[in-house]
Amino acid sequence: MARAIDLAIENVRTGGGPFAAVVVKDGRIVAEGTNRVTSSNDPTAHAEVVAIRAACTALRAFQLDGCDLYTTCEPCPMCLGAIYWARPARVYFGSLAADAAAAGFDDAFIYQQLALPRESRKIPFLEIMRDESLACFRAWAEKQDRVEY
Amino acid sequence: MARAIDLAIENVRTGGGPFAAVVVKDGRIVAEGTNRVTSSNDPTAHAEVVAIRAACTALRAFQLDGCDLYTTCEPCPMCLGAIYWARPARVYFGSLAADAAAAGFDDAFIYQQLALPRESRKIPFLEIMRDESLACFRAWAEKQDRVEY
Repeated sequence: MARAIDLAIENVRTGGGPFAAVVVKDGRIVAEGTNRVTSSNDPTAHAEVVAIRAACTALRAFQLDGCDLYTTCEPCPMCLGAIYWARPARVYFGSLAADAAAAGFDDAFIYQQLALPRESRKIPFLEIMRDESLACFRAWAEKQDRVEY
Repeated sequence: MARAIDLAIENVRTGGGPFAAVVVKDGRIVAEGTNRVTSSNDPTAHAEVVAIRAACTALRAFQLDGCDLYTTCEPCPMCLGAIYWARPARVYFGSLAADAAAAGFDDAFIYQQLALPRESRKIPFLEIMRDESLACFRAWAEKQDRVEY
């Protein structure tokens, strides 16, 4: 966590957001990530997502079996989802979502939106062409050598 | 959506998952994305995330102002979070989360986990070094030329 905090402070200095994350396996850092949303024009480049992607590349795996993720702040809903897909053993976080909100990063809005039914959300979610879209899953079911995840 | 469905079916054929997404602005496709989780060892490479990243690169922006996102399936929690950070005008989806679950992709577990208090989640979330982590936000507050998002 001390390393992640250093990375986050350095990241602010070089034009990124005040967040960093580190992935550790067997007592060794396998990847690091910092928030690069504005500096790389990527709204998904939160520290946790960047660190997870780098760790999976380093480990040549699409899951973080036996890894711990250290992040300087409690994850937002996107990062929480990414963590569940990556499946690390544990997540350590430093500051709280409330601390991030006090600093101007309010994930609470997104948590609230996720809990709402689709039709009540601020961004409209509209269903179209469901029958046609099911062809994607039929193609998947018919594929013999598919890699499940 | 028809284009996204074609992309998803082609993606299955070439070793990816049965999902694709397309970002449209002013009636023109600005970016496409397909699920590359297993084929690129990236658990965050869901179609929506890939398409959002590509669209932001193409538009040189970290938000998708005035864009519509078409995705062949209702987004998972990670992608829903990514969508809220990217802030497109609308999201059109084809099949339902229940259709994905029937095909073996069960996002419902992650939606359930998000709704739980930290201490009840399957992946342990542990708070450490909160006081030290707050230094990241102090560095942010003190930075004069920070780019808010």
